Amino acid sequence: MSTATDRDSRSFRRAQRPGVDAGHHVDDPHGDVSLDARELSAEFAGGQERAAGPDVAAYAMRLGDDALVLAQNLCGWVARAPELEEDVALANIALDLLGHARPLLRYAGSHDGRSEDDLAYGRDEHEFRCAWLFELPSGDFAHTIVRQLLASAHLLELYRELTASTDPVLAAVAAKAEKEVDYHRDHAVQWTLRLAGGTDESRRRFLVALDDTWPFLDELFRDEPLHDRLGDVAVRPSTLRGRVDDVLAAVLAEEDVPVPTIPASSAGGRRGIHHPAFGPLLAEMQVLARRHPGATW
Amino acid sequence: MSTATDRDSRSFRRAQRPGVDAGHHVDDPHGDVSLDARELSAEFAGGQERAAGPDVAAYAMRLGDDALVLAQNLCGWVARAPELEEDVALANIALDLLGHARPLLRYAGSHDGRSEDDLAYGRDEHEFRCAWLFELPSGDFAHTIVRQLLASAHLLELYRELTASTDPVLAAVAAKAEKEVDYHRDHAVQWTLRLAGGTDESRRRFLVALDDTWPFLDELFRDEPLHDRLGDVAVRPSTLRGRVDDVLAAVLAEEDVPVPTIPASSAGGRRGIHHPAFGPLLAEMQVLARRHPGATW
Repeated sequence: MSTATDRDSRSFRRAQRPGVDAGHHVDDPHGDVSLDARELSAEFAGGQERAAGPDVAAYAMRLGDDALVLAQNLCGWVARAPELEEDVALANIALDLLGHARPLLRYAGSHDGRSEDDLAYGRDEHEFRCAWLFELPSGDFAHTIVRQLLASAHLLELYRELTASTDPVLAAVAAKAEKEVDYHRDHAVQWTLRLAGGTDESRRRFLVALDDTWPFLDELFRDEPLHDRLGDVAVRPSTLRGRVDDVLAAVLAEEDVPVPTIPASSAGGRRGIHHPAFGPLLAEMQVLARRHPGATW
Repeated sequence: MSTATDRDSRSFRRAQRPGVDAGHHVDDPHGDVSLDARELSAEFAGGQERAAGPDVAAYAMRLGDDALVLAQNLCGWVARAPELEEDVALANIALDLLGHARPLLRYAGSHDGRSEDDLAYGRDEHEFRCAWLFELPSGDFAHTIVRQLLASAHLLELYRELTASTDPVLAAVAAKAEKEVDYHRDHAVQWTLRLAGGTDESRRRFLVALDDTWPFLDELFRDEPLHDRLGDVAVRPSTLRGRVDDVLAAVLAEEDVPVPTIPASSAGGRRGIHHPAFGPLLAEMQVLARRHPGATW
């Protein structure tokens, strides 16, 4: 007893801030979620931190906002999924997505001196650039799974391509994210088969969710002048459409689910116009930071 | 392009359920959170799954409920902590706790044929055995950190002792949990120093939180006839008090915070009488399972 107490009481103070240390403890099974754009950019820029140009920052902000908002949406499920095993799975996916959002937002903020926290907690709704698919309310479990299926099918193709980006920070984030999103897609596919091929009720709910969600896929494939200007730094959204459509069609075909023919939504998340569910989600996310600006108390 | 599509569309079906597979994917950075009492007990019982006796089941249920409820409380913070880095840290801690709750609840349920999900989603409030400390509302960030400090200081000493349990399943769960709770305590200590030694406002909030939380520490150290009957299978709660008190006193002393002298609450979580915040927390956790019994749809 005395040994433990002696060791414990020697000193609890350390040099690092808890936040900084939190993701890096020794034998940390989740250590890699705290991938850090600063480290990455330093690594790829010869030890010098790399600042994003305005277009790269805008691009990184979109990707980071998509991941951040989907992560927060998924966290709403923790400890209320249909199974404890599934709680763990959804929480892990949310953590992976936070791990993508953070370096992307930090890189986006390097353009004008804002931190990842400034971007996450300090922006108003119209300043976010997430697509509507990621903002959709979680609905029932079927809606969450369909959102995961469409999102991860898209993100996997996107990050695969982005590993070849001429921007070293984006390429490094993509290389890490690709492996994780591959698992996210697999997870969503297995649940899709289980729901679509399960009971009459699970299939009915799956089909409703598919119809509700499908219109928001199109927004992900729209090219804009930003992509023209970025060239080989970014992935042209329209180039991903064929592969994503093929994958989704193949998954749905396994359970004889026809690909929806519902018209696309004119969703404008990339222009700062958001789904009605986004305001409340953002308010919940920012409540603490807004109440205590700077979080310094 | 065609290679990826061909590979993707070959077949998405696999033998395993997504839930079962979710925690075990290859190169899974979080794989160990899905530690499984069935595997553990099989490993320690020569391949035969071990069923808990009634007293062991009651003991495992207490520990499992503590971890489950604290995990759900912590998840309320995800994507609304003061920093994104901290979101990741709290979510990781919650995942660790779910990883302790699951094998403990599964082991508890082995006594009478209930699954971990039966226990998590199918019990009424009075059937839960968590202590009040774990049920306390998250409050502001200072309350969450004080709850973490007291909980993890206790859990670390508990699991350290429990590694010597004569029950192989409890000993194995404790061995895994000890390493993780060691990090949780470190995390809470660092935030304690940061808050107590920060601004006037952060110290004021910390002291309020400490006073609000301290009365619920005592419940963790109360011996009962159950512990007499369990002998070397369990840890006698009263034997932990000295070490936990020493650790907490040492941490508080670093910032010249006096140890509170507030009387202990007569909290009765171990007897099924719960904090007023527990009912709503449980309702949120069980809403889906209750609406769709068996989660089969």
